[in-house]
Amino acid sequence: MAEIITIGEILVEVMAKNNDQKFEETGEYVGPFPSGAPAIFIDQAARCGSRSLIISAIGSDGFGRMNLHRLQRDGVDVSRIKVLEGQTTGVAFVTYQKDGERDFIYHISNAACGYIDEKDVCEEDFRDCHFFHVMGSSIYNRNTYLAITKGIELCLKQGGKISFDPNVRKEIITDNEKRNLLIEILYQSHIILLGEKELSYLMGEEQERKNVETLLGRGAEMIIVKRGKRGATLYTPNNTVHVGAYPVEEVDSTGAGDCFGGTFVSCINQGLRPEVAVRLASLAGAKAVTKKGPMEGNTTLEELKRMYEEHYNQKPV
Amino acid sequence: MAEIITIGEILVEVMAKNNDQKFEETGEYVGPFPSGAPAIFIDQAARCGSRSLIISAIGSDGFGRMNLHRLQRDGVDVSRIKVLEGQTTGVAFVTYQKDGERDFIYHISNAACGYIDEKDVCEEDFRDCHFFHVMGSSIYNRNTYLAITKGIELCLKQGGKISFDPNVRKEIITDNEKRNLLIEILYQSHIILLGEKELSYLMGEEQERKNVETLLGRGAEMIIVKRGKRGATLYTPNNTVHVGAYPVEEVDSTGAGDCFGGTFVSCINQGLRPEVAVRLASLAGAKAVTKKGPMEGNTTLEELKRMYEEHYNQKPV
Repeated sequence: MAEIITIGEILVEVMAKNNDQKFEETGEYVGPFPSGAPAIFIDQAARCGSRSLIISAIGSDGFGRMNLHRLQRDGVDVSRIKVLEGQTTGVAFVTYQKDGERDFIYHISNAACGYIDEKDVCEEDFRDCHFFHVMGSSIYNRNTYLAITKGIELCLKQGGKISFDPNVRKEIITDNEKRNLLIEILYQSHIILLGEKELSYLMGEEQERKNVETLLGRGAEMIIVKRGKRGATLYTPNNTVHVGAYPVEEVDSTGAGDCFGGTFVSCINQGLRPEVAVRLASLAGAKAVTKKGPMEGNTTLEELKRMYEEHYNQKPV
Repeated sequence: MAEIITIGEILVEVMAKNNDQKFEETGEYVGPFPSGAPAIFIDQAARCGSRSLIISAIGSDGFGRMNLHRLQRDGVDVSRIKVLEGQTTGVAFVTYQKDGERDFIYHISNAACGYIDEKDVCEEDFRDCHFFHVMGSSIYNRNTYLAITKGIELCLKQGGKISFDPNVRKEIITDNEKRNLLIEILYQSHIILLGEKELSYLMGEEQERKNVETLLGRGAEMIIVKRGKRGATLYTPNNTVHVGAYPVEEVDSTGAGDCFGGTFVSCINQGLRPEVAVRLASLAGAKAVTKKGPMEGNTTLEELKRMYEEHYNQKPV
């Protein structure tokens, strides 16, 4: 039975080939690539050696099969991915602006993964669940929200913990209602992974230290603020650890944060110390940006441990 | 007020760059291109000089804007294209098999254009309507079917005629119920444009001549069987005209049939004889396949008339 479980969108990503391409203009794209924040997360959690399950839905089409085969190959339990006849697998188009920002056009909530619901979430799947991971991006309709809420309940009921990445994107979080749902989950989470802006956006307070103290005071055990090229900071009730970024040539940052999260939770699940897990996660994130495609830079724990030894001149224990 | 009106999907098309690409594998694509069978038809009808209107819906995104600008530039009345916040413009992905067949993955009925409904079809828009054109591909949900049915009624009520292209695709027409809806429209149509296989599929009879006689017997005025590289045949109650294909180097056949239809109906609307209109339409279809992109090979009536004079050594009268 799975130790790490997530619920949410499985997509393909179709990526602009050149910088500064616009959706209004014909251009070249590369894709499809397996994608979807929870899918990238769970793929990486499995590759790092934890028993991992995703609850999701795809269409009966080539885009869905591509994802299914990838997750299966990497060791994810795919038995709870519904294949829906008459629905189409979700798609995300992405273009890259000059300033490094990305623009998206999504078919998600209206695609096959829009049909994930509570009925897909079974108590027996959660019997051995240590971590239930929530991606904020997966709250794109009421069905998926209710499915996620049920997942949280089932996980907590049998002693598991909640990990959470709000994954706030301007195209998806358009209203205050959604923000409130994210805050609700934030306060139930034991492991919180997020960007600097997300933290202040959700908490309504600019000072990171204050926000972190509030969350630790309300029961969070580990908070990781991801800062991209500037590394990451791990906060626990007793410790603050800053990890510098591993120097790499960035090809494509899409999915790196999800890969970071999958590595971190998988390492914690396997008993590694948070200080070591955050470094391994940071290395995984760095590795991820060297490959074009959201899931293409995912990697194994063995390789991350090798990178760790090389970079830190010590074993990851 | 518009003389030619259609209702249906506006999409972007994203096309595989190489032959024999598979949806399951990462590859290169070119797009977005303005698309959607009724959009291609109406764009061409407008370019050929008839006052043309499309009733449709797009998302508030780059893909939608691309279509809107193209149709507007080419003279289509775009005032009845709804721009829906929170919905995404439809997308069609297309790959080309070795044998020339195409495979599609669609976001249509679940996209913005899935929200076209009866309320979008206003009697006053039909005041001057000479031709209401129906694309079979547009019957992808009950809403659009009802909208189209209302369009047929309003057009007939004030003395206009129905033109129809069943546009049957294996991915869309999956059940007998849809086939019956198409047959219902077929029997109400004055101008019928279709492929050989579509005719026998809908009529349940292999012999073309028999099928044509049945349709003419039930009130059809012009039936055009499109045969791609083998030309086209025009049947009227008094005449049968075969038109050979204009020799061109085929780059992309997508949209050529819709461009053929837009030309034919626009020419008939402007009083050209069916024998001349079918030749101009055939030239337009030939021109269309020389350009990559469903709507990129659309052209003006002036250019088609020039091609006509060159090819037939006479004026198109």
